[in-house]
Amino acid sequence: MASSTSESAELTELRERLGEIADLGTADVLLGWDRETVMPPAGAQARGEVSATIEKLGHQRLSDPAIGELLASVAEQAAGDPESDAAAIARVVRRDHDRAVRVPSELVAEMARATAAALPAWQQARESSKFERFRPFLERNVELRRQVAACFPEVEHPYDALLDVYEPGATVATVRDVFDRLRAGLVPLVAQIAERPEPDPLPGPFGIASQRELALEIARSYGYEDDAWRVDDSVHPFMSNIARSDIRVTSRWSEEDLSGVFSIMHEVGHGLYEAGVDPALDRTTLGTGVSLGIHESQSRLWENQVGRSGALWSHWLPRAQQAFPQLDGIELDAFLRAVNVVRPSLIRVEADEATYALHVILRFELEVALIEGSLAVADVPAAWNEQMRELLGVEVPDDANGCLQDIHWAFGELGYFPTYALGNIVSGQLWAAARAAQPSLEQEIAAGDASRLLGWLRENVHAHGRRLDPAQLLRRATGQELDPEPQLDYLREKYSELYSL
Amino acid sequence: MASSTSESAELTELRERLGEIADLGTADVLLGWDRETVMPPAGAQARGEVSATIEKLGHQRLSDPAIGELLASVAEQAAGDPESDAAAIARVVRRDHDRAVRVPSELVAEMARATAAALPAWQQARESSKFERFRPFLERNVELRRQVAACFPEVEHPYDALLDVYEPGATVATVRDVFDRLRAGLVPLVAQIAERPEPDPLPGPFGIASQRELALEIARSYGYEDDAWRVDDSVHPFMSNIARSDIRVTSRWSEEDLSGVFSIMHEVGHGLYEAGVDPALDRTTLGTGVSLGIHESQSRLWENQVGRSGALWSHWLPRAQQAFPQLDGIELDAFLRAVNVVRPSLIRVEADEATYALHVILRFELEVALIEGSLAVADVPAAWNEQMRELLGVEVPDDANGCLQDIHWAFGELGYFPTYALGNIVSGQLWAAARAAQPSLEQEIAAGDASRLLGWLRENVHAHGRRLDPAQLLRRATGQELDPEPQLDYLREKYSELYSL
Repeated sequence: MASSTSESAELTELRERLGEIADLGTADVLLGWDRETVMPPAGAQARGEVSATIEKLGHQRLSDPAIGELLASVAEQAAGDPESDAAAIARVVRRDHDRAVRVPSELVAEMARATAAALPAWQQARESSKFERFRPFLERNVELRRQVAACFPEVEHPYDALLDVYEPGATVATVRDVFDRLRAGLVPLVAQIAERPEPDPLPGPFGIASQRELALEIARSYGYEDDAWRVDDSVHPFMSNIARSDIRVTSRWSEEDLSGVFSIMHEVGHGLYEAGVDPALDRTTLGTGVSLGIHESQSRLWENQVGRSGALWSHWLPRAQQAFPQLDGIELDAFLRAVNVVRPSLIRVEADEATYALHVILRFELEVALIEGSLAVADVPAAWNEQMRELLGVEVPDDANGCLQDIHWAFGELGYFPTYALGNIVSGQLWAAARAAQPSLEQEIAAGDASRLLGWLRENVHAHGRRLDPAQLLRRATGQELDPEPQLDYLREKYSELYSL
Repeated sequence: MASSTSESAELTELRERLGEIADLGTADVLLGWDRETVMPPAGAQARGEVSATIEKLGHQRLSDPAIGELLASVAEQAAGDPESDAAAIARVVRRDHDRAVRVPSELVAEMARATAAALPAWQQARESSKFERFRPFLERNVELRRQVAACFPEVEHPYDALLDVYEPGATVATVRDVFDRLRAGLVPLVAQIAERPEPDPLPGPFGIASQRELALEIARSYGYEDDAWRVDDSVHPFMSNIARSDIRVTSRWSEEDLSGVFSIMHEVGHGLYEAGVDPALDRTTLGTGVSLGIHESQSRLWENQVGRSGALWSHWLPRAQQAFPQLDGIELDAFLRAVNVVRPSLIRVEADEATYALHVILRFELEVALIEGSLAVADVPAAWNEQMRELLGVEVPDDANGCLQDIHWAFGELGYFPTYALGNIVSGQLWAAARAAQPSLEQEIAAGDASRLLGWLRENVHAHGRRLDPAQLLRRATGQELDPEPQLDYLREKYSELYSL
C-alpha cells in the first residue's frame, strides 16, 4: 500500500508536495499545542504571526495549479484500482485542492479579519451577557459563510457546503433526518429520567495528583504509551496529533468531581484514532482522522460507552477507592449512577450523555436557518430560548447562559456543531458492531483489558485515515447507514438499569 | 527606525518575504526546543522530517532570485542613509542570500546525508573510545567543508569561509592573533594557580528543587520575566528564542554541586540578548544575535563576570545558605574559591573559566590544519593528545576523553568552536567597558540589582541585533578591536585575590 518502486513520476512528485503540506500542518499543530499548554503568555502576539505564515504557506501549496495537474494524472493512472492509496490520494486531495481554489483568497482573508474582530466582541458580549454587542459581528460571519457557500453552487442546500468542511459528504437532509429521529428518542427518555430521584454525587474532594495518576493508568489500559504520548493541562481539553508516535492530550481538573478523568478518556479516544492510522498514509495529508464526526465517535466511545460502563468500573473502582478513600463503601451501582447522572441544563460543555445531543440539535437548526436566511441574527436569542424550553425544558436566564456560551460562532465555524452529535450517533453504531463482532469485549474490559476493542477499532476505523469517507467507513464497519437507533438503544438500556426505569 | 509609510514598494515586499523566512525560522526553533525538552521519545523520526521541510522552505525562500533583485533595489534606495534599517537589511540579507545561493543545494543535501551517517558513527566510536570508527566519517565531513570553502574563492584562508557562518567577518588571521595572545597569558596563569593548594569544594548535596528556586530568583534579578520566559530541563543546557517575549532556557542539574545554577545564569545571558533586540527588527531576520561569539560573550558575562563574582554572592550567599543549610558558616571568600576553582582537565564542557579557552584554541588550530590540509584526519588523536599536554599539562587516557568528546565534528560544524573563546574575550572587553561607563555597577549588583548593567548591554549590544557586524559592535561598545587583554586582566585580578597569587 505504501509508495512502491513502480510508482509513477507524477505520484512521486505529488507525494513530495503532500509531504511538505503535511509537515507544515504538523508544525502548525505544534505551534497550537505549545500556545495552549506551555507558551509564556507574552508570546501570544508573535505566535499569531508565525501560525498565520505557516497556514498561508500550506494553503498556497495546496492550491498550487501544479497540484491540480498532478492529481489529474494520478487519478487517471489509478482509475483501474480504486482501492489503491494512489486512487484515495487523488480523490481526497482533489477535494482539498478544489476547495482551496474555489474559495477566493480575498474571502479567506476577509473571514480571518472578521473573526479577529468578532472574538473580542463575543468575549465582551458574553461577559456583559448582551447579545446585541455581538450581533453585528455574527451577522458579518454569517454573511461571509453564505458567500463561501455560494462558491459551491452545486450543493442542494447552501449549509451543505459548510458542513462538508468538517464532515465530508454530510448534508442538511441526511443530518436532519438522523437528528429528528435522535431527538424523538431522547426527549421522552430524558423526561422519563427526570421523574426519578437524582442520584447522590460522589463525595469529594478529589486530589488532582491522584486523579492524574488514575486517569493515566486507565489511559494506559486504553492504549496510551508512555514513550509516544504526553498529558498536559490546558483551559479547554484537547488532543494534538504531532505524529502517530507523538500524541498529546490535555485535561483540566477540578477537585469537586472526576470530570478530569473522563476528559482524559475522551481525549485519549481522539488520540488512539490518530495513533492508529496506517503508516502508509504518513505525509500524504490522508494520514489523519477523516472527519470531526468520526473523530468524536472515538472520543465518545472511550469516554462513555467504555469509560462510564459497569464493565470498566468493576475493574477500576477498587483502584479509585484506593486513590480516594472517601469512596470506600460506595457500591459499583451507586458509583455508576453518580458518573452517569442525567440533568437537563443550560451549558452544552457540561451536559451529560443523554442531553448533550439536544444542545447540538438546537444549534444545528439555528445555523441552517441563519444560512438559508429563514432566521435573522437578531432573532437568535428568542429562537434559542424557545428551543431550550422545548427540547430540554429549561428556562434560559440570560444570553451568557444561552446563545453566547460557545466560541464557535465568533470563529465563524458554522457547520461544526452537528459533528458533536454525529459523533454520539456513530459511537453507538460502532459500539454495537464491535460487541457483535467480539462478544467477549465487555468481559475483557471488566478484566482491565481493552486491547481487543482497540484492535477492532484500529482495523475498522483508525487504519483507514482519510482513505474512506465517513459514510463508506461506517458502512464497512457496521453494515449500516448513519442511524441513531443503536445509540438510543444503548442509552435506554443503560439508564433503564441505572434508574430502574 | 521601523517601517514607515514612505517605505518603498520593494522594501515592503522584501519585508514581507523576510517575515515569512523569519517565521519559518521561529517554527524550526520551536520544533527543536520541543524535541529537546518535552517531545515523547518516539516522536523523533517524524520530527526530523518536519524540521527538514521547514528548513528547506526557508532556504528556498532565502535563495529565491526575486530576493536578490529586491535587495539590489533596496540597497540602492538606502545608499544615502547607511545607518538606516533598510541599509542594514540590504547589507545583512545580501550576505545570507549570497551564501544560500553560492553553496549548491546538492552540496547542502550531501552534507545533511553525511551528518546523518556521522552522528551514530561518532556515538559508537565514542562509546568504544575508538577514533578509527569515526575517522572515515570525519574525513567525509572535512572534505565536504573544504568543498563549501571552495565556493568562496575570494577568502584569504579557506577556513575563513567556515568561520564566517558563525562569526561574520572573523578570519583565521585575526582569530589566531588574539588566540595566540590569549594563550600566552593563560598558560602561565594556569601554571601559577596550579602551584597553590586546591580550594575545598562546597559540601553537598544540593537539592534540585532548591537549586531551581535559587537559580530562578537570581535569573529574575538579571532580567528574567515570568510571563515571557520559561525554564525546562534538557540533556544539554540551551536557550531558544521563540520570540522576544518568549524566551526559553534549559538546564541540567546535579545534586553534587551548583553547576545547574551557573548553567541557568549562562543561558539567561543568552536569553537577555535575544529579549533585548530592537522590536523594529522583528520579522526582518535581523532581529537576533549577530554571531555566536557575541552571543557567548553575553552568556559568559552573566555566568562568570557577574555570576561568579564577590559582588553577586555578597548579596546571594545568605539566600543560598537558607536553601542549603550545610553552607552555614562558609565565608564568602571560601564560597568564591569553591565556585571559581581552576583545574586543568580533559573535558571542555567541564572546564573552568581559566582553562576553558585553551580547550578551544586546541580545536581551532586542529580545524584550521584539517581544512588547509596540513593535518590528516588520521593524525588527529596524536595531535590532540600532544596539544593537551602542551596547553593544559594533562595526559589523555583515551579518545573518548580526547578527540571524540564533542559532537560538533560529527555535525560537520567546523568553524564553530572558536566562537566559544571569542565569547570569553569579548565578555572581558564588554565588562571592562561597562564598569568604566557605570562605576557603580558592582555596588548595585552587590545590592541585588543588575538593571544598570542590563541597560548598558541592551543599549550597546542587544538592541543592535544583526544591524552591526561583530567588529563594529565591539568598536562602538568598547572603542576597541578584538583584544584578549581585558579578559586576561580580569582573570589575573580575580585569581590573584582568590588564590593570593
